[in-house]
Amino acid sequence: MSRIWNFSAGPAVLPAEVLEQVKDELLDWHGAGCGVMEMSHRGKEFTAIIEAAEADLRELMGIPGNYKVLFLQGGATQQFAQIPLNLLSIGASADYLVTGSWSKKAVKEAQRVMAGTASVRVAGTTEASGFTRFLDAAEIAIDPDAAYVHVCTNETIHGVEVDCSRLPQTTVPIVADMSSHILSRPVDVSKYALIYAGAQKNIGPSGVTIVIVREDLLGRAPATIPTVMDYAVMAENGSMLNTPPTFAIYVSGLVFKWLKRLGGLAEVEKINAHKAELLYVCIDGSEGFYRNPVRVADRSRMNVPFTLANPELDAAFLAESKAAGLASLKGHKSVGGMRASIYNAMPTDGVRALVEFMQDFRKRNA
Amino acid sequence: MSRIWNFSAGPAVLPAEVLEQVKDELLDWHGAGCGVMEMSHRGKEFTAIIEAAEADLRELMGIPGNYKVLFLQGGATQQFAQIPLNLLSIGASADYLVTGSWSKKAVKEAQRVMAGTASVRVAGTTEASGFTRFLDAAEIAIDPDAAYVHVCTNETIHGVEVDCSRLPQTTVPIVADMSSHILSRPVDVSKYALIYAGAQKNIGPSGVTIVIVREDLLGRAPATIPTVMDYAVMAENGSMLNTPPTFAIYVSGLVFKWLKRLGGLAEVEKINAHKAELLYVCIDGSEGFYRNPVRVADRSRMNVPFTLANPELDAAFLAESKAAGLASLKGHKSVGGMRASIYNAMPTDGVRALVEFMQDFRKRNA
Repeated sequence: MSRIWNFSAGPAVLPAEVLEQVKDELLDWHGAGCGVMEMSHRGKEFTAIIEAAEADLRELMGIPGNYKVLFLQGGATQQFAQIPLNLLSIGASADYLVTGSWSKKAVKEAQRVMAGTASVRVAGTTEASGFTRFLDAAEIAIDPDAAYVHVCTNETIHGVEVDCSRLPQTTVPIVADMSSHILSRPVDVSKYALIYAGAQKNIGPSGVTIVIVREDLLGRAPATIPTVMDYAVMAENGSMLNTPPTFAIYVSGLVFKWLKRLGGLAEVEKINAHKAELLYVCIDGSEGFYRNPVRVADRSRMNVPFTLANPELDAAFLAESKAAGLASLKGHKSVGGMRASIYNAMPTDGVRALVEFMQDFRKRNA
Repeated sequence: MSRIWNFSAGPAVLPAEVLEQVKDELLDWHGAGCGVMEMSHRGKEFTAIIEAAEADLRELMGIPGNYKVLFLQGGATQQFAQIPLNLLSIGASADYLVTGSWSKKAVKEAQRVMAGTASVRVAGTTEASGFTRFLDAAEIAIDPDAAYVHVCTNETIHGVEVDCSRLPQTTVPIVADMSSHILSRPVDVSKYALIYAGAQKNIGPSGVTIVIVREDLLGRAPATIPTVMDYAVMAENGSMLNTPPTFAIYVSGLVFKWLKRLGGLAEVEKINAHKAELLYVCIDGSEGFYRNPVRVADRSRMNVPFTLANPELDAAFLAESKAAGLASLKGHKSVGGMRASIYNAMPTDGVRALVEFMQDFRKRNA
């Protein structure tokens, strides 16, 4: 078997050692006589699995005791609806910061589901500048009466990332979509009212979505919300109102244990900062052959979009990189060019291989 | 490794040969250099996987061309809300047949989400007789103007099953929860407007829900429904509006191929009828030592609840059966006693082992 260097934006590469463990346990988990996919979610085996996953996530992120951790279904896209449906009462208003395709989708969905009942407002946007940077403080006008302000802290398509230390100072509860950089660096959870993330980038397989929500935000949903979408009900039931996506939760839990073995998020951040620096140095040192359009302070460590000065070379770059074992480098169609997603599970050697290829390709085509 | 005989009601046993294939392909699917969990859902590899899964399901069930097949998230419990939200317009009414815990939950959820906007009516219930049989024709009063009539064709907890040939003759669209017996026998899909099933019993891992919906029912949802819950949008996007639960769909697809290798649903039904008969003969021939309360014509081939005449023996039965490698036989707390779930993936030899144990236990304790 030969593993490629997989730069997919998601579903994305998983740690090989996690996959090896999943493989070993697939038909018989710890002597249970069946695999995790085949276990009752109410049994003691799976209960131990989900409890360990939550405990490890709490430890990794330093989640305070007054936050619930939920393992839900439907992806971040379902959360785009579920958040306003839970948090935005009739006649109230919510603010959204729009810094890329994903936060734009979040606004649109909130406006859809709340149409005619609540207000969904854009409190700042960088769309006019092509989503190539985060918002400056002067560009953000948060309504102090807003039920919450929503931010996407890493825009997967545009490659724009913001650390929580740079978020606006506000008393309005902050709701953050961290789908594509959760667990890539330490985060001060207490600065957020709600953090959510689809698993398929930095956590595990698609099909599970993690929501970390402060307890005082629970219980605000209207009585007519679908029960599975009510955070309070899901919290009361330990994410097991109905059958959860057990296998996806199990694999996510193994990823948490892997992150702990790496030394936790402070160590993981060092590795990620190093990987990203290697790639940006290659791009910025290419004398314009490669170009990343994002303002330096806002560049994502997880998703690195770049274009070739001569787009006629795009096809050759993709074909030759693929032949060299570097996969899924094609950029999102809305921005074109290339994108290298270098999540936690992408080894530094994978980034080195990409940099080496890019430098060689440039030499041959400059 | 020693595999148990796993009688879990769900998540449930999967075919060992499917799991062996999943294991072989876990880090490298067909030479792709990565596993299915790590692939972009937009890539050609996963596109081939989901298209094959749909084609095989269509072939197995004989799904007519005017039906869409959707791979969704959230389980049957989410469908309890999603069905009325999609199909029941303001001021309209829907009928529900209540024949066990699951159809009762379906009514309750429909009433919750439609409260004050539409009518959700019970058109027949066997609750007074303890959910031990299906409804007789004379007990069903369907409103001819109902938007749909909902039925659970196999009640997992109470072990009550009905074949579509015995459903009421009506022009009202029939919506069926087939979660716990889909693919266990041939079904005339054209008699239904919508069929749905959580995967974790007869299809694959939890986290994917299959909806088979007639095209004329699409596009009725209000504009404010969460986008991921709108059947029409999901149908237009081939179940990939957002990232689907890719791994669960892949495993489900392997189960479909396994069912085709067994000879399709007519052959599978023969095996299931044989397995169920072995177990019911054992129960009925026990001179009252074991008892199944369901009317013979309505007994489920998938979920066989039974009680011991002397409930003081329950603990010994469970401990000894577990020691004999027969797992997850404890009945649901709402009915007590035992339950053997004998889905497609439970081999006949597993049922033989259970019957042998039950006869031996009876001899030792009668």
